[in-house]
Amino acid sequence: MPYYISGVTADHNDLVARQPKEFKEQNGIDVKRRHRALSLDTADHEVVIADLESGRESVVGYSKLLLTTGASAFMPPVEGTEAEGVYTLRRLSDSIRIKRFLSSATPRRAVIVGSGPIGIEMCESFRRLGLEVSMVELAGQVLPIVDEDVAGRVQGVLESEGVKCLLGQQMLGIREDGGLVRGVELDSGVIPADIVLVAVGVRPLSSLAADAGVELGERGAIKVDSQMRTSAPDVYAAGDCATTSDILTGEQVWMPLGSTARKQGRLAAEAMFGGESTFPGVQGTAVVKCFDHTVGRTGLDEAQAKKAGFDPVAVQVEAESLHSYYPGRGTMYLKMTSDRETGRLLGAQVVGELRSMAEKRLDIMAVAVSCGMSADEMQYVDLAYAPPYSTAVDVPAIAASLMHSRLQGTVCRCDTSGLD
Amino acid sequence: MPYYISGVTADHNDLVARQPKEFKEQNGIDVKRRHRALSLDTADHEVVIADLESGRESVVGYSKLLLTTGASAFMPPVEGTEAEGVYTLRRLSDSIRIKRFLSSATPRRAVIVGSGPIGIEMCESFRRLGLEVSMVELAGQVLPIVDEDVAGRVQGVLESEGVKCLLGQQMLGIREDGGLVRGVELDSGVIPADIVLVAVGVRPLSSLAADAGVELGERGAIKVDSQMRTSAPDVYAAGDCATTSDILTGEQVWMPLGSTARKQGRLAAEAMFGGESTFPGVQGTAVVKCFDHTVGRTGLDEAQAKKAGFDPVAVQVEAESLHSYYPGRGTMYLKMTSDRETGRLLGAQVVGELRSMAEKRLDIMAVAVSCGMSADEMQYVDLAYAPPYSTAVDVPAIAASLMHSRLQGTVCRCDTSGLD
Repeated sequence: MPYYISGVTADHNDLVARQPKEFKEQNGIDVKRRHRALSLDTADHEVVIADLESGRESVVGYSKLLLTTGASAFMPPVEGTEAEGVYTLRRLSDSIRIKRFLSSATPRRAVIVGSGPIGIEMCESFRRLGLEVSMVELAGQVLPIVDEDVAGRVQGVLESEGVKCLLGQQMLGIREDGGLVRGVELDSGVIPADIVLVAVGVRPLSSLAADAGVELGERGAIKVDSQMRTSAPDVYAAGDCATTSDILTGEQVWMPLGSTARKQGRLAAEAMFGGESTFPGVQGTAVVKCFDHTVGRTGLDEAQAKKAGFDPVAVQVEAESLHSYYPGRGTMYLKMTSDRETGRLLGAQVVGELRSMAEKRLDIMAVAVSCGMSADEMQYVDLAYAPPYSTAVDVPAIAASLMHSRLQGTVCRCDTSGLD
Repeated sequence: MPYYISGVTADHNDLVARQPKEFKEQNGIDVKRRHRALSLDTADHEVVIADLESGRESVVGYSKLLLTTGASAFMPPVEGTEAEGVYTLRRLSDSIRIKRFLSSATPRRAVIVGSGPIGIEMCESFRRLGLEVSMVELAGQVLPIVDEDVAGRVQGVLESEGVKCLLGQQMLGIREDGGLVRGVELDSGVIPADIVLVAVGVRPLSSLAADAGVELGERGAIKVDSQMRTSAPDVYAAGDCATTSDILTGEQVWMPLGSTARKQGRLAAEAMFGGESTFPGVQGTAVVKCFDHTVGRTGLDEAQAKKAGFDPVAVQVEAESLHSYYPGRGTMYLKMTSDRETGRLLGAQVVGELRSMAEKRLDIMAVAVSCGMSADEMQYVDLAYAPPYSTAVDVPAIAASLMHSRLQGTVCRCDTSGLD
């Protein structure tokens, strides 16, 4: 949606993965639009639904039920958030309203509250449209899903693109005038704003399940097992409304992401028809485009690793994506974390120029972390090398060699220049 | 070097990873240029070397010896290969000679013998320079390191770029006139040529070792164990002159590649100083840029898998790299092979438009194959998703789902369009 708002994506209809009639025609699935599920009776296997057009209620029975109610954007309970020009960005209708407001009210100064992936994507969208952009973040760094050193680099990118970063600041209220937003009240004072995007996270939509006595879990999401089964018989849940587990710590977590939702949905469908696959959980992988840079993470950061009982060791590598003789290379920074005792790879974080293809190295690390690979093993993985694609020893392997040396206590000069 | 020949890389000095004086200054290593090792006495731990300038011979003792003699281009023993305009491409001097010939003799018609990665890279270089290009291949398909279906797509790319592919044809001789190449004699007749590049593979330079009684292995390369030790005490070998093992089959193989050489060199250095890491072997990963496409492979193809005792099952997916609403996507074709019994991923092959970043999916598969991941597990790996980088479920996971369904015997429509 940030790309629709900025005009990169021209038509909002392109953002709809599948239209109701496609469900019908391709899969024989009857999609009831403008209907609300009012209540759920897990004993009698029935759902009460209301047709929002006619107001008529009806009861629908089920053999198996899948709850995919999703999540909603969180709006902090402060004064003034109903003012025109204050938005969250969760539903397609949000992006259409924002885009309309941008062309009708022609705001000049944008304030983005929250510096997660959506906040960062919206910085780029607003700057692309020529707005002044200030980003407000409660934490002492931007993008709190990455470590401070990585965040510092992200902040550098944001600032070089003209984004003002206001850290350690809470949104205390919205100032308005005649129903139209005029500013955001922070701890440090009021900053003027013609449009405000609040992107401070989402909450699971689990009240239908909770009201029916279905057990909730982490952060109020619907608790599911590895086959997406809830506590109620024949009731499954998947996607942003459901919990999952962290594959590294085994702990129950709630990490709503589109990619996870797709996988859980597929697995739930299989499980409801007797499939035996299990969802292994997630590992906190995320990536975001920040102007001409890519930022991402997978696995545990140092703090999470310590909390989970590991003894984490981190190494950092700044390297070029290609040998100097081949055009188009970019610089990337890779931080890798391993467990001191076993050498097991626990996580990685990257920041790189877009053309460095840092996301490729992130996915290499994601698979390695998922498989429990050690730094010693990562050094020698047979990755695909040709000059247009990487250096002869690719960045994850360079970092792994450095890690291995550090864990062994041997001296290692990480001379990445010599790798040319 | 193909990129230097085409002008993508301007200066051949940029192709030299490290100059002799850098070895001296940075590492205290004395590089003796224009010296030849004449013989090796593994009992007395001595090497006889000759200074090629003065002709003087001397004896150098060693505590540990590392043989990194590399490989040389193979020239088939047919008539006429000494003609001017006939080249192999292995050493930097080869590329300098080819480039000089291109500008002095201004050849119009190029014939490339062999359709491996170097042959394909040189097709692009010669076309870029405006030459007519014919490629001769003994096998019935181009790029014999990939399966026939993948090769068919590669051939389509080559032909659309104006390369004439002559398959099932052997070079029987070179026709010359006054010492200058005029044509290549094939089974089907003579094709005219103003320049001929012979790229039919390399052979290990192992005679120094062999003459000293050091055991040779596969394809006449120096046999080494997982710590790069040869059969002779204190003698190690690494890189293109040495064997390695296939991590999937455990068999000794010879697969000379720059990336493998770098890793073996590093490991040998560690091992010579008491390090305990072992080289796990290779899995036949390779990638090559073919004009505006990327082609690659990792692991076992179907034939190799059968030979190794697996019961391979293959699935093919043709998919877009990004959702349709985000600009810059490309199409890629991914073929994935698993073992029927265990679901273990055995290998993958890709062909994709350059902008599809097929090499990323290849490296994801390389790590997964290396770790012994199953198709069922691959479906659910937590890869990095954001619209500028991939679809919500990335191509390897789509292929893995299809594979999983096939192995389970369940019906699966691989509706990749619905993944938008």
